[in-house]
Amino acid sequence: MKHFLSVNDVADPDALIRKAIGMKHQALSSGSRPGAGKRIGLLFFNPSLRTRISTQIAAQNLGMEVMVLNADRENWALEFTDGAVMDGATVEHIKDAARVLGRYFDILGVRTFPSLRNKEEDYSEHVLNQFVRYAGIPVVSLESATLHPLQSLADLITISEHFSENRKPRVVLTWAPHIKPLPQCVANSFAQWVLAWNKAELVIAHPQGYELDEAFMQGAAVTHRQEEALQAADFVYVKNWSSVRNYGQLLPVSENWMLTLEKLKITRNARVMHCLPVRRNVELSDEVLDSPASLVTEQASNRVWAAQAVLAEILVALR
Amino acid sequence: MKHFLSVNDVADPDALIRKAIGMKHQALSSGSRPGAGKRIGLLFFNPSLRTRISTQIAAQNLGMEVMVLNADRENWALEFTDGAVMDGATVEHIKDAARVLGRYFDILGVRTFPSLRNKEEDYSEHVLNQFVRYAGIPVVSLESATLHPLQSLADLITISEHFSENRKPRVVLTWAPHIKPLPQCVANSFAQWVLAWNKAELVIAHPQGYELDEAFMQGAAVTHRQEEALQAADFVYVKNWSSVRNYGQLLPVSENWMLTLEKLKITRNARVMHCLPVRRNVELSDEVLDSPASLVTEQASNRVWAAQAVLAEILVALR
Amino acid sequence: MKHFLSVNDVADPDALIRKAIGMKHQALSSGSRPGAGKRIGLLFFNPSLRTRISTQIAAQNLGMEVMVLNADRENWALEFTDGAVMDGATVEHIKDAARVLGRYFDILGVRTFPSLRNKEEDYSEHVLNQFVRYAGIPVVSLESATLHPLQSLADLITISEHFSENRKPRVVLTWAPHIKPLPQCVANSFAQWVLAWNKAELVIAHPQGYELDEAFMQGAAVTHRQEEALQAADFVYVKNWSSVRNYGQLLPVSENWMLTLEKLKITRNARVMHCLPVRRNVELSDEVLDSPASLVTEQASNRVWAAQAVLAEILVALR
Repeated sequence: MKHFLSVNDVADPDALIRKAIGMKHQALSSGSRPGAGKRIGLLFFNPSLRTRISTQIAAQNLGMEVMVLNADRENWALEFTDGAVMDGATVEHIKDAARVLGRYFDILGVRTFPSLRNKEEDYSEHVLNQFVRYAGIPVVSLESATLHPLQSLADLITISEHFSENRKPRVVLTWAPHIKPLPQCVANSFAQWVLAWNKAELVIAHPQGYELDEAFMQGAAVTHRQEEALQAADFVYVKNWSSVRNYGQLLPVSENWMLTLEKLKITRNARVMHCLPVRRNVELSDEVLDSPASLVTEQASNRVWAAQAVLAEILVALR
Repeated sequence: MKHFLSVNDVADPDALIRKAIGMKHQALSSGSRPGAGKRIGLLFFNPSLRTRISTQIAAQNLGMEVMVLNADRENWALEFTDGAVMDGATVEHIKDAARVLGRYFDILGVRTFPSLRNKEEDYSEHVLNQFVRYAGIPVVSLESATLHPLQSLADLITISEHFSENRKPRVVLTWAPHIKPLPQCVANSFAQWVLAWNKAELVIAHPQGYELDEAFMQGAAVTHRQEEALQAADFVYVKNWSSVRNYGQLLPVSENWMLTLEKLKITRNARVMHCLPVRRNVELSDEVLDSPASLVTEQASNRVWAAQAVLAEILVALR
Repeated sequence: MKHFLSVNDVADPDALIRKAIGMKHQALSSGSRPGAGKRIGLLFFNPSLRTRISTQIAAQNLGMEVMVLNADRENWALEFTDGAVMDGATVEHIKDAARVLGRYFDILGVRTFPSLRNKEEDYSEHVLNQFVRYAGIPVVSLESATLHPLQSLADLITISEHFSENRKPRVVLTWAPHIKPLPQCVANSFAQWVLAWNKAELVIAHPQGYELDEAFMQGAAVTHRQEEALQAADFVYVKNWSSVRNYGQLLPVSENWMLTLEKLKITRNARVMHCLPVRRNVELSDEVLDSPASLVTEQASNRVWAAQAVLAEILVALR
């Protein structure tokens, strides 16, 4: 693996999932430190809790040295436009920043959220791709403008661990209410991974106007009726996202899409997933989150093994 | 030891003090790394200098991996109310946050200051106790709403090191002026530890209206006359705190309670203590702080050994 | 070496440069960890990217434990005035802070920018020198009010690596435009180091009114005509600084001092240097920065070896 920006960087998603699960069950032997002498920089343009901790743990488990860089855009105003005359608010061009970081580290992790104002710019991944272009070292997405592949890998690890029947599980990705516009990246990425994995049946349910970008969900069944989607579901992934069509907007939704225990009864004893943080009693009810059906803590916990499997793959390619 | 939230978690305070002093004098041998393979997360909802550094050093000395999480409440607005409909400013429920942190770490340190507005809420330790309830791993107080046990343990280490007579030292905790309302936790905790230790005579001196909560100081002598308290004192612990009765308020005080060299003359060549940071020439005069009587740097230095002894005890219980 | 505050702390600058280059080319052998068991604190009163990362890497390469402390002045309002009655905004006196840090660490790195309002205060290095006075441990400048010696050492390493002729290179330090007033420290320090090194001919070019402080540039040729300076230059170091005479001010400059490829033609195929971050198309044109003449990424990369050589020298003195 060279970079890890989406599932497209992964030759065999299922092999990576099995590798991660293997790492989870294998006691860390002090003998195997494939990252010894290697250094990763984790660059956060936006806040992070789970990604920050789990990726650090993963890198340390592999024997790497880790450095976290908090670079929110107010403190470190980067210029992204080629040829800009930098006589304004930006203090450093991404070209120069990325080239320097490429000298200090062996691998670079980058978190960069979308603006939700300019779809073209966000969906071109203009921040992440400039790091790829100029850093000259492998880049790992710690959540980008449109995708969150480490989350998705952890999600598929979790599904793999909780389904042992000899058939494809029915996985429902259902939109949920929220009080402010959120990125589409968790949903985009989950769809893209489930489809690339090809070991589950994917149904996406959302109100009209919340269609995901076609680039990521071709091959999934789509419905605007949540109840229809939930029928016979084995896993229900709950997530809010803002509109792609009316980019970054909250559209009026007449029905209540919050997932409740009552709605869960329609499913085939489905397990419930969410990437966290979650707005309780807005996206999901307390009774769902605190029930045995909830896998949300498991998902967060599996972020460690997802990151560890990905970094291990990149380390192999670095040797 | 399971958790470390107050002296009540300590079976034998004097044994813990002696353990810490032993660690201080023992050169770190590379062979004894009881924390190897264990990971502590230090979660700061409020600023910290000494606690942050000394606890990191202690954990590293034991061979642990340490991760510092700056989670001031503006950046990571946690919800603490059970059953809340989270359609407002809070973005994550402490339940979910604590459960996830409990998966990532073996021990969790938490610093959380009181609001000083709602006594009932502060004195119920509703933040710290929810971490204890939901994290499922040992929790170490890095200073909570009402107590600061790592500071108190360092204070008793310092007293132990500087008193060798065959009698109980007379320890005076004296209120000092300040320009803004401060928590009661250092004073509460110091009183609680000295009393549980039972190897010193404790006198608490403060202006009327500044009585400490009875839960922590039962058994201490109390006076409103500073000079009376200082007579024959062996140690003078200087600290401001806001009123408990008129919760979180500054009350008018007619006399000047700042500790000066002149006042120190009343004592039995007492050594002077303060937890830092200190407002010079408000709480204590320069001449006291810069005199040989001052133990304030020693106290800060002993924070390392206090934390190391506590973490070592918890690690034993984890095996 | 005891402290590292300026080139004056270095007995033999050229030996230090050669030591750094040696470290760069020597694979890190796990056997040589001269910093094992030692701990450095890196205290940042101002933002940092390159210094923060490179000094951490250097310390880790030597086997040290590193702790980064972000202490911008808003969050940790230190008092610097002796005898102050601290009843105002400052919460801790530098005396107490430095004494405590001196107990926690073996070496202390400090970054502190000038106010650019009070020349006397800035040029007395009243912040850095109080850490030296009270910490009681070696202090390393991570850029101070008037100097940036780690940058200068990295700059001379870079020049050494890119010049092999049997003569002194002609090194031109040329002022460049900027949109806001910057410190003089990079320019001061570069001049001081080149002159102490005595292995290059130094020419300083700047508009009238931008004279550097005499303490640092005695022995350099000075001109107000950029073109004259550039003739036969082997290295061109581009850097903005604010006026020393009209302290901290931007003065009107009629000519355009931005370095362009056109201007570079006057030189002897000079290599171009800048400490970064750089305002593209204000200080230097894109075409210069993206040309093979540019050494700016090299300079940033060499910060690691500069810091490593300095820390190694200090560690020797600590044993």
